[in-house]
Amino acid sequence: MRSLLSCQAFLLLAFSAVAQTNPHINLVPVPSSVQLGTGQLLINQSFSVAVTGSHHASLDRGQQRFLTQLSQVTGIRFLQRLSDAAHPTLQIRAEHGREEIQKLGEDESYQLTVNESGAQLTAATPLGALYGLQTFLQLVEATASGFAVPAVTIKDQPRFAWRGLLIDVSRHFIPLDVLKRNLDGMAAVKMNVLHFHLSDDQGFRVESKRFPKLHTEGSDGQYYTQAELREFLDYAHDRGIRVVPEFDMPGHSRSWLVAYPDLASSPGPYKIDPIDPGPDAVIDPTREDTYKFLDKFVEEMGKLFPDAYFHIGGDEVSGKPWDTNPKIQEYIHAHGMKNNQDLQAYFNQRLLKILDKHHKIMVGWDEVLHPDLPKSVVVQSWRGQQSLAAASRQGYRGLLSFGYYIDLMWPAWRHYEVDPMSGDAATLNAEEKARVLGGEACMWTEWVTPENIDSRVWPRTAAIAERLWSPAEAQDAASMYSRLSQLSWRLTAIGLTHESGKTQMLQRMADSDDVSALRVLADVVEPVKDYTRIENVKGPWDFRAPLNRLVDAARPESDVARAFQDAVQAYIQSGYKDRTAEEQIRSRLTLWRDNDRKLRSSLAQSFLLSDLAPLSEELSTLANGGLYALDYLGRSEPAPQAWRTQELQWIEQAKAPKADLLLMVVPPIQQLVEASGKQ
Amino acid sequence: MRSLLSCQAFLLLAFSAVAQTNPHINLVPVPSSVQLGTGQLLINQSFSVAVTGSHHASLDRGQQRFLTQLSQVTGIRFLQRLSDAAHPTLQIRAEHGREEIQKLGEDESYQLTVNESGAQLTAATPLGALYGLQTFLQLVEATASGFAVPAVTIKDQPRFAWRGLLIDVSRHFIPLDVLKRNLDGMAAVKMNVLHFHLSDDQGFRVESKRFPKLHTEGSDGQYYTQAELREFLDYAHDRGIRVVPEFDMPGHSRSWLVAYPDLASSPGPYKIDPIDPGPDAVIDPTREDTYKFLDKFVEEMGKLFPDAYFHIGGDEVSGKPWDTNPKIQEYIHAHGMKNNQDLQAYFNQRLLKILDKHHKIMVGWDEVLHPDLPKSVVVQSWRGQQSLAAASRQGYRGLLSFGYYIDLMWPAWRHYEVDPMSGDAATLNAEEKARVLGGEACMWTEWVTPENIDSRVWPRTAAIAERLWSPAEAQDAASMYSRLSQLSWRLTAIGLTHESGKTQMLQRMADSDDVSALRVLADVVEPVKDYTRIENVKGPWDFRAPLNRLVDAARPESDVARAFQDAVQAYIQSGYKDRTAEEQIRSRLTLWRDNDRKLRSSLAQSFLLSDLAPLSEELSTLANGGLYALDYLGRSEPAPQAWRTQELQWIEQAKAPKADLLLMVVPPIQQLVEASGKQ
Repeated sequence: MRSLLSCQAFLLLAFSAVAQTNPHINLVPVPSSVQLGTGQLLINQSFSVAVTGSHHASLDRGQQRFLTQLSQVTGIRFLQRLSDAAHPTLQIRAEHGREEIQKLGEDESYQLTVNESGAQLTAATPLGALYGLQTFLQLVEATASGFAVPAVTIKDQPRFAWRGLLIDVSRHFIPLDVLKRNLDGMAAVKMNVLHFHLSDDQGFRVESKRFPKLHTEGSDGQYYTQAELREFLDYAHDRGIRVVPEFDMPGHSRSWLVAYPDLASSPGPYKIDPIDPGPDAVIDPTREDTYKFLDKFVEEMGKLFPDAYFHIGGDEVSGKPWDTNPKIQEYIHAHGMKNNQDLQAYFNQRLLKILDKHHKIMVGWDEVLHPDLPKSVVVQSWRGQQSLAAASRQGYRGLLSFGYYIDLMWPAWRHYEVDPMSGDAATLNAEEKARVLGGEACMWTEWVTPENIDSRVWPRTAAIAERLWSPAEAQDAASMYSRLSQLSWRLTAIGLTHESGKTQMLQRMADSDDVSALRVLADVVEPVKDYTRIENVKGPWDFRAPLNRLVDAARPESDVARAFQDAVQAYIQSGYKDRTAEEQIRSRLTLWRDNDRKLRSSLAQSFLLSDLAPLSEELSTLANGGLYALDYLGRSEPAPQAWRTQELQWIEQAKAPKADLLLMVVPPIQQLVEASGKQ
Repeated sequence: MRSLLSCQAFLLLAFSAVAQTNPHINLVPVPSSVQLGTGQLLINQSFSVAVTGSHHASLDRGQQRFLTQLSQVTGIRFLQRLSDAAHPTLQIRAEHGREEIQKLGEDESYQLTVNESGAQLTAATPLGALYGLQTFLQLVEATASGFAVPAVTIKDQPRFAWRGLLIDVSRHFIPLDVLKRNLDGMAAVKMNVLHFHLSDDQGFRVESKRFPKLHTEGSDGQYYTQAELREFLDYAHDRGIRVVPEFDMPGHSRSWLVAYPDLASSPGPYKIDPIDPGPDAVIDPTREDTYKFLDKFVEEMGKLFPDAYFHIGGDEVSGKPWDTNPKIQEYIHAHGMKNNQDLQAYFNQRLLKILDKHHKIMVGWDEVLHPDLPKSVVVQSWRGQQSLAAASRQGYRGLLSFGYYIDLMWPAWRHYEVDPMSGDAATLNAEEKARVLGGEACMWTEWVTPENIDSRVWPRTAAIAERLWSPAEAQDAASMYSRLSQLSWRLTAIGLTHESGKTQMLQRMADSDDVSALRVLADVVEPVKDYTRIENVKGPWDFRAPLNRLVDAARPESDVARAFQDAVQAYIQSGYKDRTAEEQIRSRLTLWRDNDRKLRSSLAQSFLLSDLAPLSEELSTLANGGLYALDYLGRSEPAPQAWRTQELQWIEQAKAPKADLLLMVVPPIQQLVEASGKQ
């Protein structure tokens, strides 16, 4: 599922104009039913909350967390001590308890009713109540008369039962406190699965007491102890989030083989070293010792991670170590297999028996799909709705991750329009459709560190969360962006660093508190898309290299460029008469034109900035041209052909990435220049 | 020492132009001796550090912390595992160990030598080594060829032995994680005392096992457990920071008397309630039970806080409860006392015996000074160098806090120019001077919460830290500001939130991720100074009220306004010929003129913003006038008298605070308008 394959090109479709089925209300994800009432419930210091009916420890903690987050969002410290809320402003009632180990498909529905005198939240389970509390939080807004929640009745439940986020902690280690704040973000948008990609070529990240070399030799010393993980799993459980561990095998397993080279298909040595790594790393499926090892391993990890599902990876297995090992070739022939695929299927069947023995359900990437495997296996598709649909027709349950790879630096709308039930999946019958469990956003961490992971995940992942929770009819990207902007600061308020992390990185680059000029540039660039960055690497990819350049700080999607594009669109569509749009365009272009002068001298002084000089200059040049075009358009005078030719030539040059960055205002400036010739 | 007295007005002196004795190097505080060499030491992934000679556990941890902070400042993850540094880039050697309980006056000196091939840090004690590591960190800069430290030899030691920061956790509770990051900030600027103001009228913040009502009844449920505090004290000790607890008595003691009304000088009841608090709260010094209580109390707290010094407050004792209590009056007369001051001195003498018994040295505010007290007492002056000098002449050791009240929202330069040895203290003889131990910045928290405390403390406190550490000759405020700007982002990099907290608060106010227009306004205002804000409160001050307005978010000192002021100064001094300055002025004024249009519609929608409308409009009006003035000056044409009269009238109106905020760009715009008439 992780590869250098270039992904399918998407057409730059205009945003869907399909109206929301719901009245406009600032909720992400959009609930399945919203009925606005009249009036509002004021939220002040005397706000209180209480659970009525039977108590559940995790809901008690959820209620306490809710009050904390309500404080963070409003800046109000509430006077309530939890015990005293006899007449609470918000009453919560959950009919039943929760499963001790959270199950796929537990009832997650809730109903929230707010009027001027109070609010009631009811749910079948504490899970639903937790989601309802997040909805309530998002409804709180500063109005003219104070903080308030509008009178409303919301009935809500998810469209898909599996709404996940994969985080790869192997390529770059991500500490648990960073993951915890991301769990808070997931809970805020009602996601319920953390897919924990715990091992890969670059590192094995869990303490194993049975096979301690896995974490000592198989990592750079950065791993989670079992005690830390247990506390982390409680944290996730409290937030209604299942944690599905993934131990990728038989490929992507260099870190295992560094520790236990006897498991390998080629003689080693293997090293976690970008320059001298050793041969392709694949576990040997032909040796009985492999399965003895895996039996003990699955037993240990299966106990540590209580979830019923266990992800075995299974993707992108290099054929070379098997092709070149005569004993393995002999084994293939002796057992009547036709090829390496058969051998992997054999491995999976053996592994499945081990998982069965330890009461785990197997999840694997696309490649595990093989007629020999039983229908209990869940297939995670990184190849597209086609393979998802195919699996479903064959009777397998499936998850979509194709289209949800957030490491590819796509804008939110591109993820938003990917639907697990679209394409081939749209033709499934009801029974087959029911096998599509949901999907997962995937945060692969080749270019991601604890410092910038939040900005790669948020707020874009919320668009995917909405796709997986909300009714399929939620398709209005403009509404999604507007709601994302509000959600984004609320995520910041509860501890996410997608905004502050960028500022910190810019300050480091500028070696100053004042990053105004650098930020002007940073706000209009985006990292190159898909796998371009890794394709640009000369020589072996050094996964230990510092990630402290502008490409690492820049947000995956430029809000400034999108707003500018919108203004240009509005201006052109108005026949160059929209003065507000013109003023916005002019003020931006002026800022950009003048910015290079402010920035230029500092760029040369630091190796972190020197490769930005061409970008900064281009921004200035293009903005200058844009201002000329705007003048021609304003005077209804056609711009001279020769001038336009020159400008369009510069514009073409500016389309090429520099320093792994794209200047995102090039297309709207091009539109202005082209329009200026047509009058 | 905390009061509503208006503080002495300072003249707006131009910054001192006294040159630094040291070559310009980005260090705060400035070291006592710096010799620049040639070349630089590159810092890359293979950087390593090791302690040679004898090991000290706290230095080992300091070394690990140093590597973490070096990562945060550079974005590099270092490959070193601590054990493998056989040929370290940076060698540390501390001659002796540390005192188990950090003592006032331990040797804090260090010497740091850096050349192209490596660096050596030597110190008499691990404390000095810790300071040297902070110096090394600040020296790391991004150069054209990579991160590097310049070749340099630094010999350094502090001017004063007591360099403190008081944090009041009573008026607003500040959680320990927030305090911890502030300890990191203190360590970064070589401060060595946290003065922990743990009790006051609004709350008693420490768990007492002997008198549990103190924290349960005497607080709103927000207090530190003893276990938490022990861990916190270790954290401080690791960073070379002593923690001196203050339990304010006999005044400022409402929280005690809520819990134990029998200790009071007036019949209660006392409540921690801003509306109905009860009588003035003063402990009764005439009852033997008081001293029995205090004996047990000091025993318990003295053990919890191992520092040799114990602060008993002693300030601002209301006379009313003593004047109106016949038994107390009787006691005063029966014991031959003349007045309440004598009674307080008697209380202090009794308390002193208790402190003696438990091996503690008494520290108190100015008011404790009384001829009956022995010379071992340390007097903390909030009244000025005069009272400090007087105490010193009488043989008492003293600390200066007058001029270092950072809650008064002064600019850094005003604190910077306050010297413990200036004024009356300048006339002390050597022996008397030696009794001046240093000083303390004071963070009183009437208007401070966990959300904005960092922005009130940093970076201004670094100017005070420099005053207390660096040679007295360090007087160049322009240099101080330039170095503060670099220090500031480094503080952000290690976890301080003075920058990000402001953004979060603005986002809440704007209910959006995009705060660009609100930030333009926020960046040119400052909270009103001195005690104006509390004087503006109508009725009783509600210490529980939310602090979520712009006055709470705005930084105490506007960098933007200072830069604008500098540009106007340069432009006028150049005879209106400095084109760079003119361009800076014009671009700022244009931004401000156009900002109200962008902001106005959103202001009315939220109660958090509505009172900003007049400020936003004034900024726009004044900027417009400034642009006209600039045009007249550019054309060397005198501006019409009538126009100037009107502008100056608006300018006068704009000087009045609105929403407890001052528009800081009024004076430079006034200068432009006035200049425009003189040509």
